Amino acid sequence: MTQVYFDHNATTKVDDAVLAAMLPYFREHYGNASSSHSLGLAARRAIDQAREQVAQAVGARPAQVIFTSGGSEANNLFIRGVADSLKPSALIVSAIEHPCVMRTAQALTRKNGEKWQLHYLSVDAAGQVNTDEATEMLVAEKPAMVSVMLANNETGVIQDVTSIAEAAKTQGTWMHTDAVQAFGKVPVNFDELGIHAMTLSAHKIYGPKGAAALIIDERLPLKPLIYGGGHEDGLRSGTENVPAIVGFGAACELAISRLTESMAHTVKLRDHLEHGLLAMGATVFGLDASRLPNTCYFALPDIEGDTLVVRLDKRGFAVASGAACSSAVPGKSHVLEAMNVPTILARCAVRASLGPDNTIEEVDAFLSAIRHIADELRKMSVLLNV
Amino acid sequence: MTQVYFDHNATTKVDDAVLAAMLPYFREHYGNASSSHSLGLAARRAIDQAREQVAQAVGARPAQVIFTSGGSEANNLFIRGVADSLKPSALIVSAIEHPCVMRTAQALTRKNGEKWQLHYLSVDAAGQVNTDEATEMLVAEKPAMVSVMLANNETGVIQDVTSIAEAAKTQGTWMHTDAVQAFGKVPVNFDELGIHAMTLSAHKIYGPKGAAALIIDERLPLKPLIYGGGHEDGLRSGTENVPAIVGFGAACELAISRLTESMAHTVKLRDHLEHGLLAMGATVFGLDASRLPNTCYFALPDIEGDTLVVRLDKRGFAVASGAACSSAVPGKSHVLEAMNVPTILARCAVRASLGPDNTIEEVDAFLSAIRHIADELRKMSVLLNV
Ligand SMILES: Cc1ncc(COP(=O)(O)O)c(C=O)c1O
Ligand SMILES: Cc1ncc(COP(=O)(O)O)c(C=O)c1O
Repeated sequence: MTQVYFDHNATTKVDDAVLAAMLPYFREHYGNASSSHSLGLAARRAIDQAREQVAQAVGARPAQVIFTSGGSEANNLFIRGVADSLKPSALIVSAIEHPCVMRTAQALTRKNGEKWQLHYLSVDAAGQVNTDEATEMLVAEKPAMVSVMLANNETGVIQDVTSIAEAAKTQGTWMHTDAVQAFGKVPVNFDELGIHAMTLSAHKIYGPKGAAALIIDERLPLKPLIYGGGHEDGLRSGTENVPAIVGFGAACELAISRLTESMAHTVKLRDHLEHGLLAMGATVFGLDASRLPNTCYFALPDIEGDTLVVRLDKRGFAVASGAACSSAVPGKSHVLEAMNVPTILARCAVRASLGPDNTIEEVDAFLSAIRHIADELRKMSVLLNV
Repeated sequence: MTQVYFDHNATTKVDDAVLAAMLPYFREHYGNASSSHSLGLAARRAIDQAREQVAQAVGARPAQVIFTSGGSEANNLFIRGVADSLKPSALIVSAIEHPCVMRTAQALTRKNGEKWQLHYLSVDAAGQVNTDEATEMLVAEKPAMVSVMLANNETGVIQDVTSIAEAAKTQGTWMHTDAVQAFGKVPVNFDELGIHAMTLSAHKIYGPKGAAALIIDERLPLKPLIYGGGHEDGLRSGTENVPAIVGFGAACELAISRLTESMAHTVKLRDHLEHGLLAMGATVFGLDASRLPNTCYFALPDIEGDTLVVRLDKRGFAVASGAACSSAVPGKSHVLEAMNVPTILARCAVRASLGPDNTIEEVDAFLSAIRHIADELRKMSVLLNV
């Protein structure tokens, strides 16, 4: 059975054109990009081109792109790379950051010797970081760095990064945004955001796993996370993953070329989906906030998210439960917790994240599957209560 | 023109069978291995299988395998991961480690606050770490950790890691070996080496770039280098690079299945090559040491390595110059320096590293190309000296 895939915020399939661009680099142009012979030079040229494609897609210059192995690595590189360059002081992250920002920041507070002070920005019931609180905290703490994601992976809620970046600038704070979920789904421009660093990841935009980037303002004080041969301008050592980097570049081009169309398409499907869900009595998280066009994070009261995901899977639909959205180790959603969603409702959370290849028929089939499952489960619980 | 590839220590082409194993994971089984739907479970199963293949290839258990994005990351994970778990004290590395061990160790000595003390183990003229010195230093410094590579990437010289590991054990020192170059070229067994951690990398054994591993004794105190969703038992977060990990597993199986044959084949070619080079008056570095069967590191007096590499490339042969062997930023070879090779000879160093697909005809053609180039260059220098 081919699955109807509604889990594009978790990962995406590699696009045909992207894979086609990658393939020659496995067996023909397989050289090490640091080698000075022709095979090495061919690999180097391919990386240069991908660097231009990535930079272009977010309005940056190629020299600002540091390739990493993934979004998690890029986020770690920002936080530990800046921390290793400066004296310990304060840093701020939002309460809804991905664990690869959150836990990296927390690790800085647990060091031997001097420690960093970590402060959290709260969010409102719709999942939006409060920009006034951000400004106040930036003025009060004058932190060395702040990281606020551009769009949340669970809710899809888009944050007002530009405002926070302005406030950061007045305090001399280095500002980072994790744009892993926003990129490819809404327009993202490095300069317009006014930030100093930004994370992108290929496998969320129909590119391969194994390539991502930290885009930086070159004034950013940054030490490497991975030391070695001095690749990526000394900021990320290790033999470059040429096929994956080539695929990342191709995926960036693809994302930009179909962005307008894909936004219009997914928002139409998403609205249709939410219309149906609301009619069933579902709660849609972040409904009143500005959100990614493809993300629908909902809860059907009394139907546990994990159960719904398993039953939907049996019927051929791939979605994510709130408990498993952000982590390899399922637990409570810290995002819903930060939004003050009651635990009993949070346990029902399910995320459907759509892509440009999904269809309205798939959405209808999904809604009808949910209706069936809800009926089944209700009948079961009636029986159990007899 | 297809190149004759004699640069297998830099990287290898992805084997056909390996790529075939990987391909389904780009577009069919493209799920995130943390997802709980069928596509996620298929990815998880594929990773589990690869973990078994990797473990099996080095006589370890699957639970000892931590997948990383590359050998550099794995080496960094060991050094920083242990350092972050312990109070700063001393560490020891050999003077010929790859930069991703060397520079990571050096970075620990430059921290704010408490610093680590770094000691270097010297090598003899043949490029061998002195095990007596190692024992003395371990007893004298009682370092928290020591890292000595199993085989050097430039010379191919194999180190007596077992002896050093024994001495380390008596001092309660955590012992790591970088087996990136040894693995796939000579038998490597984790338990027999008596170490606590070992690095492997897929792209040196006909696997893809983007997958590698740190194999650990589970008692090793280790903090993550990359924090986040808690993948790899909490020790390496980030969406797993499923196709690359699958390819790594397949490459391990392939490496083991053809190891005996490939050792016999490459050593025969290598000896033939060195016979020819010695007859031309070349110096072969590490000639008297126990070496990898595939590696020939030589210098033709008065012929600069970089020049020879470029001219050989024009004639269709891919090799590496000593200056560019270990680093993305060419400079002097720290390995030859540690061996006390005179600078003037070190500048002539060229590495030919063979693979199972190379032929005796290629070696003969290579020798004859070198003879032609040497003649050309000598004629030029005669003209220039007139
Ligand atoms: C918002 C966000 N940041 C970072 C990451 C981590 O990226 P990667 O899985 O490529 O390491 C993810 C996805 O897992 C994400 O959704
Ligand atoms: C001995 C040794 N260690 C580590 C590495 C680094 O591995 P990678 O390039 O996969 O990061 C290499 C190769 O570059 C190497 O030769």
